Amino acid sequence: MTRLLLTALALTLAAPAHADTLVDNVNGITLDKDGKLLRFTGLVIDKDGKVKELLDRKDKRPERPDFKEDGKGRTLIPGLIDAHGHVMGLGFQLMLLDLSETNSLAEAQAAIRKYAADNPEMPWIIGSGWNQERWGLGRFPTAADLDAAVPNRPVWLERVDGHAGWANTAAMTAAKVTAASKSPDGGRIEIVGGKPSGVFVDAAMSLVDSAKPKPLARDLDRALYLAQQKLLEQGVTTIADMGTSILDWQAFRRAGDKKQLAVRILSYGGDIDNMAMIAGSEPTPWLYDDRLRMVGVKLYLDGALGSRGAWLKAPYSDAPGQTGLPLLTPAQLRNKMVRASMDKFQVTIHAIGDAANAEALDAIADLTADLPGERRWRIEHAQVIDPADIARFASLKVIASMQPVHQTSDRLMAEARLGPDRLKGAYAWRSLQAAGARIAFGSDVPVESANPFAGLAAAISRTDAAGQPFGGWRPEEAVSRETALDGFTRTAAYGGFAEDRIGTLMPGMRADFLIVETDPMLASPDEIRRMIPLETWIGGYRYYKKEASGGGR
Amino acid sequence: MTRLLLTALALTLAAPAHADTLVDNVNGITLDKDGKLLRFTGLVIDKDGKVKELLDRKDKRPERPDFKEDGKGRTLIPGLIDAHGHVMGLGFQLMLLDLSETNSLAEAQAAIRKYAADNPEMPWIIGSGWNQERWGLGRFPTAADLDAAVPNRPVWLERVDGHAGWANTAAMTAAKVTAASKSPDGGRIEIVGGKPSGVFVDAAMSLVDSAKPKPLARDLDRALYLAQQKLLEQGVTTIADMGTSILDWQAFRRAGDKKQLAVRILSYGGDIDNMAMIAGSEPTPWLYDDRLRMVGVKLYLDGALGSRGAWLKAPYSDAPGQTGLPLLTPAQLRNKMVRASMDKFQVTIHAIGDAANAEALDAIADLTADLPGERRWRIEHAQVIDPADIARFASLKVIASMQPVHQTSDRLMAEARLGPDRLKGAYAWRSLQAAGARIAFGSDVPVESANPFAGLAAAISRTDAAGQPFGGWRPEEAVSRETALDGFTRTAAYGGFAEDRIGTLMPGMRADFLIVETDPMLASPDEIRRMIPLETWIGGYRYYKKEASGGGR
Repeated sequence: MTRLLLTALALTLAAPAHADTLVDNVNGITLDKDGKLLRFTGLVIDKDGKVKELLDRKDKRPERPDFKEDGKGRTLIPGLIDAHGHVMGLGFQLMLLDLSETNSLAEAQAAIRKYAADNPEMPWIIGSGWNQERWGLGRFPTAADLDAAVPNRPVWLERVDGHAGWANTAAMTAAKVTAASKSPDGGRIEIVGGKPSGVFVDAAMSLVDSAKPKPLARDLDRALYLAQQKLLEQGVTTIADMGTSILDWQAFRRAGDKKQLAVRILSYGGDIDNMAMIAGSEPTPWLYDDRLRMVGVKLYLDGALGSRGAWLKAPYSDAPGQTGLPLLTPAQLRNKMVRASMDKFQVTIHAIGDAANAEALDAIADLTADLPGERRWRIEHAQVIDPADIARFASLKVIASMQPVHQTSDRLMAEARLGPDRLKGAYAWRSLQAAGARIAFGSDVPVESANPFAGLAAAISRTDAAGQPFGGWRPEEAVSRETALDGFTRTAAYGGFAEDRIGTLMPGMRADFLIVETDPMLASPDEIRRMIPLETWIGGYRYYKKEASGGGR
Repeated sequence: MTRLLLTALALTLAAPAHADTLVDNVNGITLDKDGKLLRFTGLVIDKDGKVKELLDRKDKRPERPDFKEDGKGRTLIPGLIDAHGHVMGLGFQLMLLDLSETNSLAEAQAAIRKYAADNPEMPWIIGSGWNQERWGLGRFPTAADLDAAVPNRPVWLERVDGHAGWANTAAMTAAKVTAASKSPDGGRIEIVGGKPSGVFVDAAMSLVDSAKPKPLARDLDRALYLAQQKLLEQGVTTIADMGTSILDWQAFRRAGDKKQLAVRILSYGGDIDNMAMIAGSEPTPWLYDDRLRMVGVKLYLDGALGSRGAWLKAPYSDAPGQTGLPLLTPAQLRNKMVRASMDKFQVTIHAIGDAANAEALDAIADLTADLPGERRWRIEHAQVIDPADIARFASLKVIASMQPVHQTSDRLMAEARLGPDRLKGAYAWRSLQAAGARIAFGSDVPVESANPFAGLAAAISRTDAAGQPFGGWRPEEAVSRETALDGFTRTAAYGGFAEDRIGTLMPGMRADFLIVETDPMLASPDEIRRMIPLETWIGGYRYYKKEASGGGR
């Protein structure tokens, strides 16, 4: 049982801020501004919701704080920052059909059938989370597999990585897809027996996407509400939203305007059009007491490994003719980077394959000298890197924005797709760090769960939820506990130009923190993975409290 | 010489609000909440920028106000509210080529030639304001007329009423318009000698509009800045923006976020799509200390008289075959009205011709009983009304949102278009009032100047800037000074659900007011028309002050 305080948000924020709050008797942990671990037993919060003072056991407490909270000796850690997620994607995952826990095609078909029966009014059945690898299917699913579950209404389901979609015959009919349809640039219609199989990869997804009914504003608002609830529950106090659309942004603003935005969102516009439409000719100011800012733009340079859209230097080991797809020409990529940078937007590039990472680095090398200001280039995922390119992350000062849980979910697939030789540069956290690069950690929610504790555990152990493989997959790439925490706090903030206000609990920073049961600097990876926040505080207010009697989510 | 204080806005708004301000020794005028004229000599403003108290000569003054302003016996009136304008249209008019002061085709051609020479970097020459009636041309201008001025770059110029566009050959080429092009529904490509003449009416304008380069965000921001400057200078403290696009809205928000929004904007989304994308499933809250709110949606039911797009019951007197165009079917209009109303948005319908007004009233009559809440239906312009329909404005509680200066600009054209018999219901302010309808007054800027004093003068005199015709055009439709002021203050606020915060200077209302040289309750129409605000105050801050030595604009 959990108790969610989000509904009380408007009230809380509207109430006059109390003056000093003392959170005392805690096992407090934070990194300082240089990344050194620091411990404390009390935290004083000022009337603006910022940290006023960290107290040692021997330090004098304020005499009459307006509000006092007894931590009862529990551990207090900084609010965790997800450096790469999709806020509305999470929200819609919570609203729509979620297949991410299905373990076979038959299980998925049963879930689809049940959801359709439960939601007779929905014009389309829309969902996500399927993964033919997890099912052990050995092939993509087909429209016929879906027709068997729901023949009479369009069904359209995104793959777990968001890089492929699966349609039934009714959806393809609604989208006017026929055997004569052509794959668009940067996409692929899967063909079986001379006609579309029902699976659409990358840019080809838009063929069906464009036919599905658009969500209404109230759907977006509901999705944002659900996403915030989930993030608060999981201890995420800030999330970088990677690829914000104008519709997403309007939902963020509606929530902010109504004082219903609790979780901080660092927004990156979905390509240049959304960036410019939303923020204009420069990043927005921080809005709603540092709860929302559009800081930059997200560009897509390739797809994902699962759908073989990731752009590799050499062909896939399990599909010899294919190397994946670059989604931008060199000129397109550089033009977009210059356009955004000239207006002081931060640029982050989705690059999964080693060819995409090399090209992103090349582009950054080409442009860095001629662009003004501090750029803080980012590469999202940086999953498969040619070892020869690793040092370039440091020399070009590129932030590697990586998602530890991807490694544990992908490892078997990565082995198949890449073969043994290319694994050296795959999910190479420690190598990047050793080379001097900064790493921000995230979840890629809804591709994975937003749960950052799973990420912390994977980062230090290279093991999955079942603790597999024993000793970790390529364990030499695991990072220290300090580095893992840094990636989910201090460097995640730095990666979004936010280190002057969040990411640590040093005086002057926003008082975003969690109360947890176990000290993550001492607990086993398995204990860390099972950690559930008892309380989530943002800006000096408690937004979430787990009920004492509860059994977690 | 004028001094504009808008640049100091960020500073002003960021400064801690002072406590009480006393504006004393004024000839103060306001309507009270019931519309009765009230006089005062002192005004006390509280720390939130609201009116705290109105003082009579004999009333005791606050002992130690934080700020004291001596009105030196000058007149203080409520800030004027423009119930119908186009904020970004005004801004772009100020940035782009403005032909509204040209008196002949030759003058216009010279202005176009000069503007093109002055702006060699502009890919297209874009502008507005032409009026072949004012030129006495007796026909629409043609592409050849434009080619004579600028042959080598696309030129695209909107007519003064925004209901027609004039392209040169280069613009038509860029837009791929040929003799084979078809007029779209609700629009007309003017044909001369079997091919497009260069003039595109109503929906046909989009053929060329869609080919012109889109303005950048920085252009929008600049336009908004210029529009605000102009409005402050003219004494407009609030404007209803009729047909806000998502791009307009984003510019408003950027200004608000940077504390650079001075003038209050009551926004009506341009049709349902913009409304829903911007505000979601209900009107926005008041934002930025009551400076911005999306309250409703603007629907277009017909075009304008000048371009013969206004939808008439009987054919135009000067074009016997034509009755103008309805832009929505009965079902479309009602569907949009229901969709917006169910989400509590206010609905306002552009209706100029008598057929359009009758249809708008029919639709309102059809729907009122079944929709929840207080709807405050509005009809924009309500220019030509079948006398049989006038009483329906009152019985259906429809606000007539009218623009007095249109009457003076249009009268000769209206006589030609309508013939003598139909003039009885044209610009029929007094008849509407006598029937019991409420009238909000505005400018329709940039179709006319935003200057509300010209509107006040026209409202009470039915004469134009030259005082013509002597005694007024159909003077029986002139309104009293109180009604004119009411239309530009109290009822303009009521028309946007804003009467609880602006429109009068009663205690509790925002302290939006002007200092002027002459008492508009005593001055002649001609004196009123020439009035220029000496100071413009919004929310208790002075944003504009005319320099004492100045000669006005």
